[in-house]
Amino acid sequence: MPDNTISGSNYIAGSVSAKGDAQLFAVQASSGERLSPGFHVATLEEVSEAGRVAAEAAPVYAAISAEKKAEFLEAIATEIEALGDLLLERAHLESGLPLPRLTGERGRTCGQLRLFAKVVREGSWVDARIDPAQPDRKPLPKPDIRRMLTPIGPVVVFGASNFPLAFSVAGGDTASALAAGCPVIVKAHPGHPGTSELVAQAINAAAKSCGIPGGVFSLLHGEVEVGQTLVNLPEISAVGFTGSLRAGRALYNLAAARPKPVPVYAEMGSINPLFLLPGAVSARGAAIAKGFSDSLTLGVGQFCTNPGLLVGIRGPEFDALLQSVAEALAQVNPGVMLTGGICSKFSEGVSERSANASLTQVFVGESAVDRATPSLFSVSAASFLANPHLAEELFGPSAIVVICEDADELLRVAEGLEGQLTTSLHFEASDEGLVASLLPHLVKVSGRVLANSYPTGVEVTHAMQHGGPYPATTDARSTSVGTAAILRFARPVSYQDIPDAFLPLELRDGNPRRIWRTIDGELQRS
Amino acid sequence: MPDNTISGSNYIAGSVSAKGDAQLFAVQASSGERLSPGFHVATLEEVSEAGRVAAEAAPVYAAISAEKKAEFLEAIATEIEALGDLLLERAHLESGLPLPRLTGERGRTCGQLRLFAKVVREGSWVDARIDPAQPDRKPLPKPDIRRMLTPIGPVVVFGASNFPLAFSVAGGDTASALAAGCPVIVKAHPGHPGTSELVAQAINAAAKSCGIPGGVFSLLHGEVEVGQTLVNLPEISAVGFTGSLRAGRALYNLAAARPKPVPVYAEMGSINPLFLLPGAVSARGAAIAKGFSDSLTLGVGQFCTNPGLLVGIRGPEFDALLQSVAEALAQVNPGVMLTGGICSKFSEGVSERSANASLTQVFVGESAVDRATPSLFSVSAASFLANPHLAEELFGPSAIVVICEDADELLRVAEGLEGQLTTSLHFEASDEGLVASLLPHLVKVSGRVLANSYPTGVEVTHAMQHGGPYPATTDARSTSVGTAAILRFARPVSYQDIPDAFLPLELRDGNPRRIWRTIDGELQRS
Repeated sequence: MPDNTISGSNYIAGSVSAKGDAQLFAVQASSGERLSPGFHVATLEEVSEAGRVAAEAAPVYAAISAEKKAEFLEAIATEIEALGDLLLERAHLESGLPLPRLTGERGRTCGQLRLFAKVVREGSWVDARIDPAQPDRKPLPKPDIRRMLTPIGPVVVFGASNFPLAFSVAGGDTASALAAGCPVIVKAHPGHPGTSELVAQAINAAAKSCGIPGGVFSLLHGEVEVGQTLVNLPEISAVGFTGSLRAGRALYNLAAARPKPVPVYAEMGSINPLFLLPGAVSARGAAIAKGFSDSLTLGVGQFCTNPGLLVGIRGPEFDALLQSVAEALAQVNPGVMLTGGICSKFSEGVSERSANASLTQVFVGESAVDRATPSLFSVSAASFLANPHLAEELFGPSAIVVICEDADELLRVAEGLEGQLTTSLHFEASDEGLVASLLPHLVKVSGRVLANSYPTGVEVTHAMQHGGPYPATTDARSTSVGTAAILRFARPVSYQDIPDAFLPLELRDGNPRRIWRTIDGELQRS
Repeated sequence: MPDNTISGSNYIAGSVSAKGDAQLFAVQASSGERLSPGFHVATLEEVSEAGRVAAEAAPVYAAISAEKKAEFLEAIATEIEALGDLLLERAHLESGLPLPRLTGERGRTCGQLRLFAKVVREGSWVDARIDPAQPDRKPLPKPDIRRMLTPIGPVVVFGASNFPLAFSVAGGDTASALAAGCPVIVKAHPGHPGTSELVAQAINAAAKSCGIPGGVFSLLHGEVEVGQTLVNLPEISAVGFTGSLRAGRALYNLAAARPKPVPVYAEMGSINPLFLLPGAVSARGAAIAKGFSDSLTLGVGQFCTNPGLLVGIRGPEFDALLQSVAEALAQVNPGVMLTGGICSKFSEGVSERSANASLTQVFVGESAVDRATPSLFSVSAASFLANPHLAEELFGPSAIVVICEDADELLRVAEGLEGQLTTSLHFEASDEGLVASLLPHLVKVSGRVLANSYPTGVEVTHAMQHGGPYPATTDARSTSVGTAAILRFARPVSYQDIPDAFLPLELRDGNPRRIWRTIDGELQRS
C-alpha cells in the first residue's frame, strides 16, 4: 500500500523529487485560506529529467503487450478508488466542488480508464490495413504492405481546473495517451495540487504493481513557466490541454514555433448556443426555461459545454420563456467557484455586461462576496451581429439571449457563429422547415449538435465528439472525450515486405490478435 | 467537348479569369527556352473570389450524394485521359520528364481518382459510430449519439514540381479532398502552368457534366505571394503541399499564425536511409549495389523517396559494394532536371559536398551544362554524427555513405536520425539479432519501413503510409498517398438525439448506405 501523504513533491519516473525552493500553495476554494503543505515548483532540471525518462520509457512501453497496458489502466482505476474519501475530501477542499459531484466525477474517471482498457484489449483501434503482395504483377511486382497506428511518443498533459479528476492527472488525455502506448508528463493544475499528487500516487502504485516502467508517468508542479518549458521539451510528441482560449492559444503558438512542431490538442472557449424555434417555445416554453436554467447553473456554470447563448424569435411566448428563466435563476443560491481568480473574473464579466448599453438585464442575481450568482442579459440580433465580442465566453453561470426579428435573422446569427463544442436546437414538427435550413450551419461550426436537449453532460462513449472548430479547440480533427480520443496520440506506420516475425502482432499473418483488419480494402476479422 | 487551348488564365468556379497584368512563363526544361503563352498571376481580388466561391460551394458539395461524388472523380479521370497526347507533350516540355514516365504517372493519377471514387462509393471511411439511447438508465437516461466524419471545408492544394500530374492539380491531395467532400483551390506550380491549365480544364469539364457546382474547384497561377495569400484566406480549412522543407515550414508557420489556425499537410525533406547489414552485404552485395544505384538515379533522383543515405559497416565486402555502385553510376547519362533552378541548386550541393573535407568522393560524374550527373560520397559514422547538416536532403541523384566501425555505431546512426518518409534495411538470416535492435529505431522516425527493398515506387493502396515525423512532414498523423489520405480532410461531428430524417444517410436507422458502422462499440454492417 502506498503512503498517501501529500508531500508537496513532484514525481518523476515513480520517485519523489523536490529540488526547487519555490513553492506554490493550494487554497481552500470556499474560504480562500492557504492549505499546507507547499508544493515544490519543478526546476528546469526536473522538467528535463521528466522528458528524458519519458523518452527512455517510450519504446519499452510501446512494446508492452496490449493486455498489460489494459491491466495498467484498470489498476489505475482501482488505485484511485482505493484512495477513498481522502481523495474526494481533498478535491472538495481545493475545488469547492460538492462531494456528490466529485463522487460522480471519480466514477466517470475510473469508468473512462476501464473503457480505454477495453478498447486496448480488443485492439481494432489500430486500423490495421494489409495489402498482400502480388509477385506476378506487371510491369513490377507489388510488395506486401501493412499499416497500423503506433504510439506518437511522450505526451504532455495539462490538468484542467474544472474537472480535478476527469480532466486532470488521470483524466481523459492521460487515459487515452496511456492507452495509445505513450508516456505522459502531467503538469498539475495549481488549483488542485494535492488532489493531483494523490492521483499521481495511484498511477505510480499501478505502474509498480503491473511492472510498467516508471518513466511512463511523471507529475510536475508549476505555473506558466513550467508549462512553457514542458511544451518546448525536445522529447515530447503532443500536448493535451483544457482551459482558456488565451492559455490554449499561447501553448499552440509555442508548439508551432518549436524546431520540430508538435500537435496541441487544446480544448478552449465555447458558448454552446441554444436555438429555440417558435414551435418549441410555444409548445413547451416553461420546460425549456427549466432545462436551460438548470444547464446554465449546473456546477456553478463551470462546464466547457455550459450554454452561454440562447437564440430565439421575438414574441410574447419567448418573453414568457425568458421570464420563467429569470424566475428559475432567482431560486439559485450563490455558488463557490473553483478558484478566487475564476470568481473575480466572472464578477468582472458580469459587471461589464451590466454596464454594456447594448445589453438589457433580464436577471442579475444579488452579488455575494466570493460567490457567483447567475445572470441573464438580452440583445437584439442586429446588435449581437454588430458586436462580435458579445460571443466571447464568460466562464460561469451567465448567458446572453439573442432576440431575432424573424427566422431569417435567426439563420444569420447561426451563420455568423464561431466554432463551438456544441450547438443545440429545440423544435417541434411545425419547425421542421427551419430545422432543415439551420442544421447545416450548426454542423459547420460544431463538434456536437443536440436536438431538444442541453449540452452539459458529456457521455464517455464510442460516438462522443467533444471538440469542434477553432476557437472551441486548436484541432477540430480530434475529440477529448470518448474512445476516439485514443487516435490523437497515434500515427500510422507502414511495413513493406517485413518478415512476419518482425511485425507487430496486429499485422501478422493469421491475425493472432483477432482484430478487425482491412485486407485489400475489405474489413475482416477471420 | 472543351476547347483545350492553353489560354494562360486562372480558373475560378469553372470560368476563366485573367484580371492581373503580371505574367509568369513556362520554360522548356531541356532547353531553358520560354514557352508561350504567359500565365496571368492571380490578383488579390481573384484569390479572394476563389475563397468566396469555395466557401459558397462547400455546403452544397458536402450535401451531394456519395454516388455523385464518385462519378465526379471518375469523370475527372476520363477527362484527363481524353486530353490525350496534348497533356503528355505539354508536361514533357515543361518538366523534362520523359513521355513513358509521364504516361505511367497519368495512369497513376487516374487510377488514384478511381480508387478514391471506390472508397467514397463504398462509404465506410466516415467511421460511423452509433451509441443507442438507454432511456431507462439511472440516474440519468442515456441519449442517442451518432458520430461520423464530415468534410473539413475548402482546401488549398499546392501543385508539386516533381509530379506534374500525380501530385499536382488533380493529384493525391485534390483527389482525397474532393473525395472527402471539400472544395479545392489549387495553386499551380509555376514549373508546369500549362499542364496545370489543361488538367483544370478536365476537372471543370467533369464538374459541368456531373452537375457539380463550379466553386468546388479553382486554379490560380502565381508564386510565393499568391501562395501566402491563399493560406491566409479566412474561408479555407486545410492546406496540402509537397516540396522543400523551407517552403513547407514557411506555409506551416503562416497557417499557425492565422487568427484561426488550419492544419498544413506539408510533405517535405527526406533522405530515406538504407541500412545494409553485414549478412546482406556478404550474400548479395552486387545486387544491392545495382538496386541502390537504380533507385538513386531513377527520374534523375527527383523523388521524395530518393535514397540519399547508405549506412553500412566497414569491411572489404562493403568496399566492394560501394565500388559496384560507383561503376553503376558511371553508366548513367546526365539528366534533365525539372527546372533550371533545381538543377543549379543540385550542382551547388554537389560542389559543396566535393569541397567538404569530412567527405570522401566515391564517385562524382563529369559535370554537364544544365544536366545532372550522379555522385556518391562517404563519411565515417563518427564524423556523420558530429555534422548533422550532412543529413540534410540534397534533391537529386547524390547520396552519402556512412561507414560504421561496428553494429553499435550503426545503431547510433539510426538513433540519431531525423524524421523520414522511409527507412530501409537489407539483411539475411544471420543479421536477425541486429534487425531486432535496429527496427524500433527505424519505426520511431519513419512513415514506412522496408525490408530488402528500395524506397522509390510508392504504391497507391489502402495500407500505404507516405508521411513521417518532422521534418519529413509537418503532420505525422497523416498520409499523402493511399486511401487513408481522405482522413486528412475530414473532422468528426456527433449528433445527439437528432431525428432520423435530419441525419446524414450514413447514420440513419437501418443503415441505408450499407456501410460498416460501430454500434455500441461493435463493428457491423447489417
